[in-house]
Amino acid sequence: MKIDGRQWRSVWAEPDGRAIGVIDQTCLPHRFATVRLEDAAAAGHAIRSMLIRGAPLIGAVAGYGLALALREDSSDAALDAAHATLLATRPTAVNLRWALDDVRAAVGHLPPAERAAAAWARAGAIAEEDVEINRTIGEHGLDLIGRHRQAEGPVNILTHCNAGWLATVDWGTALSPIYQAHDAGIPVHVWVDETRPRNQGAALTAWELGCHGVPHTVIADNAGGHLMRLGKVDLCIVGTDRVAANGDVCNKIGTYLKALAAHDNGVPFHVALPSPTIDWTLTSGDATPIEQRDGDEQRWVWGRSETGEIARVAVVPDGSAVGNWAFDVTPARLVTSLITERGVVPATAEGLAGLFPDRAAA
Amino acid sequence: MKIDGRQWRSVWAEPDGRAIGVIDQTCLPHRFATVRLEDAAAAGHAIRSMLIRGAPLIGAVAGYGLALALREDSSDAALDAAHATLLATRPTAVNLRWALDDVRAAVGHLPPAERAAAAWARAGAIAEEDVEINRTIGEHGLDLIGRHRQAEGPVNILTHCNAGWLATVDWGTALSPIYQAHDAGIPVHVWVDETRPRNQGAALTAWELGCHGVPHTVIADNAGGHLMRLGKVDLCIVGTDRVAANGDVCNKIGTYLKALAAHDNGVPFHVALPSPTIDWTLTSGDATPIEQRDGDEQRWVWGRSETGEIARVAVVPDGSAVGNWAFDVTPARLVTSLITERGVVPATAEGLAGLFPDRAAA
Repeated sequence: MKIDGRQWRSVWAEPDGRAIGVIDQTCLPHRFATVRLEDAAAAGHAIRSMLIRGAPLIGAVAGYGLALALREDSSDAALDAAHATLLATRPTAVNLRWALDDVRAAVGHLPPAERAAAAWARAGAIAEEDVEINRTIGEHGLDLIGRHRQAEGPVNILTHCNAGWLATVDWGTALSPIYQAHDAGIPVHVWVDETRPRNQGAALTAWELGCHGVPHTVIADNAGGHLMRLGKVDLCIVGTDRVAANGDVCNKIGTYLKALAAHDNGVPFHVALPSPTIDWTLTSGDATPIEQRDGDEQRWVWGRSETGEIARVAVVPDGSAVGNWAFDVTPARLVTSLITERGVVPATAEGLAGLFPDRAAA
Repeated sequence: MKIDGRQWRSVWAEPDGRAIGVIDQTCLPHRFATVRLEDAAAAGHAIRSMLIRGAPLIGAVAGYGLALALREDSSDAALDAAHATLLATRPTAVNLRWALDDVRAAVGHLPPAERAAAAWARAGAIAEEDVEINRTIGEHGLDLIGRHRQAEGPVNILTHCNAGWLATVDWGTALSPIYQAHDAGIPVHVWVDETRPRNQGAALTAWELGCHGVPHTVIADNAGGHLMRLGKVDLCIVGTDRVAANGDVCNKIGTYLKALAAHDNGVPFHVALPSPTIDWTLTSGDATPIEQRDGDEQRWVWGRSETGEIARVAVVPDGSAVGNWAFDVTPARLVTSLITERGVVPATAEGLAGLFPDRAAA
């Protein structure tokens, strides 16, 4: 997608072929900065510190990270060690494991001397596949949005967290249909959940939509239920970090609350996902490991100070404990449909298995 | 309640009898400061700017504000004008109208020369009644908490926004049962919703509970549903700004989402309220006027900077629109019970009318 008219992706191979470049998402929306990641340690740190985030992007960066590790040491032991180290950076997004497994499988049978180059190529292919997957998700989701088109006024879509192009390599998952609807001339307006505690909605989704010219309004996470009761939300579209084989959806903390409100008000609740986000080994979302992050993310809020610096303020009294669960699980019964690169299906074991018979059987 | 061992209320008549004192709640939890309000304009500004907030406290301060107005001009016209001006400060809390009507009714029949003193006395009586009402609410709510007592571990209670002693004259509504349970030796632990956009939970509820020694954990508003799914919430207790005659509850934005999650997980969802919070003229909560506040409350987050000053940071990109609905309506069907000074009843028209036959008939 474009920033100030220039085409960008969220991760790219640097021209010298010795590193990857990423956008430092911790500085957005206040400052646009890119970072060069030259080795696996830097890639791992970027994932762990959430310099980059979003399940599909985590997968792509991890794939490149494994390739970078193999340049230093391409032995079997080093391959396994780098796989394990990168896998431990974030527990919830299953794309991370998928990408690491994919790259290792692509190079493990090769002589060590050939592994680094092959892994780099495979990581690049994963990134390209992600772009194509998300473009296709957008086409399928565009139809869902189009059904809500009215004679007057925009289609009002609520989203949570950031499942835009910053969370993937390009296009996004939940935002891909929105970009494509906007580009196709369907008037859309997006209610952007702030998404505490890290504010990915206010900081990233609002910034992305603004860069692309999509009308949007940032709201407190608390507001979505009220807006649905008022009839101000036509549909919800969110992304996900892991979908169980039964259609349960693990996504950013607070997604479950919005799904409950959508269900209570007859508002369709769609989840957009690339197929690597499906964890075929999980029969229920309740088994998803839910990351608990540093309480400082809840205790301090980052933003732009009155003097223009990126700064933080404490919002919790000294001495008060804080909790910081990063994800929750939305039961499949609250999900209207799953939007994948192969089409739109009900959030059921049958729906998913029918669309991916090649993988569900695995 | 106590701060550092000294007894405080949230509003008091100053010793010279010429003003009221309040705690500046916009500085908490980072700085404790009191403010002297000497005239009706100052009282009105304190309500509008949320220097003080909380439906019962708004009522008490407005009552005093009307008394202060009458000291300047005690004519019928001035009485009506001050009533109208103070009523317009906040639209949602019905206690505001109740207190203003109460004071006006108490003095309107008196000769103008006697009105100011009588209004001052009546405002003081309203404040005293509020203390007694909330103490009694706590006794009734204590029984509800006690039912969840287990052999090991605390009773886990989730609350939203601040319905503590800072929101009333003393004790609080939702927090009164919690303070009384704690004082009675029932181990309690409170999940404190941050309560964006103004963070009354993180700033005020956590501070209050900390001052009184009640164990608590501040969480993002997004987290409550997940905690309920994990079985980590035994019951919810919140306050309210207006209850319709059918039991619908208007409270801080986001309350509805927590009530949905409680219902979905079989967690009791209680609402604590003094009877002046009941709007007998409303047959449904959907007719409650919902205040929309300045978008800057969503755009900027106030807190304590790294250098210890009270400062704010912007969390929304320039150019993005923001929405700021301050309240939502929780349908009575999602409310387990209403805790009032006369006892605990189902959130139904029959339940309320049965408890307040003297007022429901009015």
